[in-house]
Amino acid sequence: MVLVSTRNPLNIGAAARAMSNLGFSRLRVVNPYEASFREARSAVGAAALLENAKEYKTVADAVADCSLVIGTTAAHNRELHQPLKLLPEAAATIRKRLKSGSVALLFGSEKRGLSNADLSHCHWLLHIPTRQEHLSMNLGQAVAICLYELVRTGGNGKHTQPRAASDRIKVKPASAGELERLTSLLLDALRASGYLEQRLVAAKEEKLRRMVRRLNLSADDAEVWLGMLRQIEWKLKQR
Amino acid sequence: MVLVSTRNPLNIGAAARAMSNLGFSRLRVVNPYEASFREARSAVGAAALLENAKEYKTVADAVADCSLVIGTTAAHNRELHQPLKLLPEAAATIRKRLKSGSVALLFGSEKRGLSNADLSHCHWLLHIPTRQEHLSMNLGQAVAICLYELVRTGGNGKHTQPRAASDRIKVKPASAGELERLTSLLLDALRASGYLEQRLVAAKEEKLRRMVRRLNLSADDAEVWLGMLRQIEWKLKQR
Repeated sequence: MVLVSTRNPLNIGAAARAMSNLGFSRLRVVNPYEASFREARSAVGAAALLENAKEYKTVADAVADCSLVIGTTAAHNRELHQPLKLLPEAAATIRKRLKSGSVALLFGSEKRGLSNADLSHCHWLLHIPTRQEHLSMNLGQAVAICLYELVRTGGNGKHTQPRAASDRIKVKPASAGELERLTSLLLDALRASGYLEQRLVAAKEEKLRRMVRRLNLSADDAEVWLGMLRQIEWKLKQR
Repeated sequence: MVLVSTRNPLNIGAAARAMSNLGFSRLRVVNPYEASFREARSAVGAAALLENAKEYKTVADAVADCSLVIGTTAAHNRELHQPLKLLPEAAATIRKRLKSGSVALLFGSEKRGLSNADLSHCHWLLHIPTRQEHLSMNLGQAVAICLYELVRTGGNGKHTQPRAASDRIKVKPASAGELERLTSLLLDALRASGYLEQRLVAAKEEKLRRMVRRLNLSADDAEVWLGMLRQIEWKLKQR
């Protein structure tokens, strides 16, 4: 991650935080507008990362040891001289290259982005698909989106995997017997309340039965519903 | 996009800018920490969007017309009561639902995220895959990443329209407002029947709210359930 001529230390902090969130550690800063970039404050949890950030005078120095250099651009009002890839396809290439070497991802200043001189150090350019009417993103958000795209397919074990989603104990569905008990209790309650009398009952029963099935209840939930209906029915019949 | 109890107007502005960049327009704000949320300044290019943002007192009001309500969470130090999906898989579901109705994506306060009460209005929860050691993201960056994931597959350099109208609407899902009415009716009936008195009520309410959301009711079915509960409640109160 190389930030070039960043004006606002808060944005350096924001970039650092996103890096820390998403598992990236090497931050390089070229010619920041304020020398005091280490004071970047919005970097909750990313102090160490900022501490280890390296400062360079030129883009050339900052990317010297990288085998792939990519410039980010809003691709706005500018004739581009390099191939432009959209982030989703670009990410696949970057991930591949990261296995064998270092990749530099360059972000320009908040106001002007990367200059043509900066871009000339790049193998190709990367663009986040934004609306034509509002192309230019906030720096911290652009960094966050790029890094997210790089890790979103996961697989390196460092990130939260679908533990809660797929390691979840599978929800045991309610049995047909439970659903049928629920249906009859509901029918009883509805009869006691006068709801059913007003209508044709037979068709209603089947309709209700199907409706109860559509709930896709788990066994646990079915038990709670049964308890509630039992109580309601008991109360209704007390009259 | 629903921001709940956001403390810093800058973050509301950042969310608005990302929405504008990525092609989303409807921003809702629940109970912002500073009333002057319209003064959010970092919303470069998103003034109109902020101007049209709506303010609500409660989460229930803010999501009433939405048929799918999703809470975002860092899933940290908290026992979750709802299914948790990682962003990439969640986005596919959200895109599908956007074709037939409104989807609410909830973000909590910078410090605490969404409360359990807030989360009880949600059908399921969404998590951005971050490092275990640094799970909690900056609000504006989290918003940007979620919206990016929603539009990324359509990315061709032009604005992707995620809310494209669909010709055939299959089953229209129940709106959050209908589900909330169903929940309160159920609670009333349970109170009238004596079911609730026997137990601790506050926790019970959230539990019931989540349980009603798990039913995945269609709008048609929700109407039938409402009718049944209305009748039951009426009868119970006649005593």
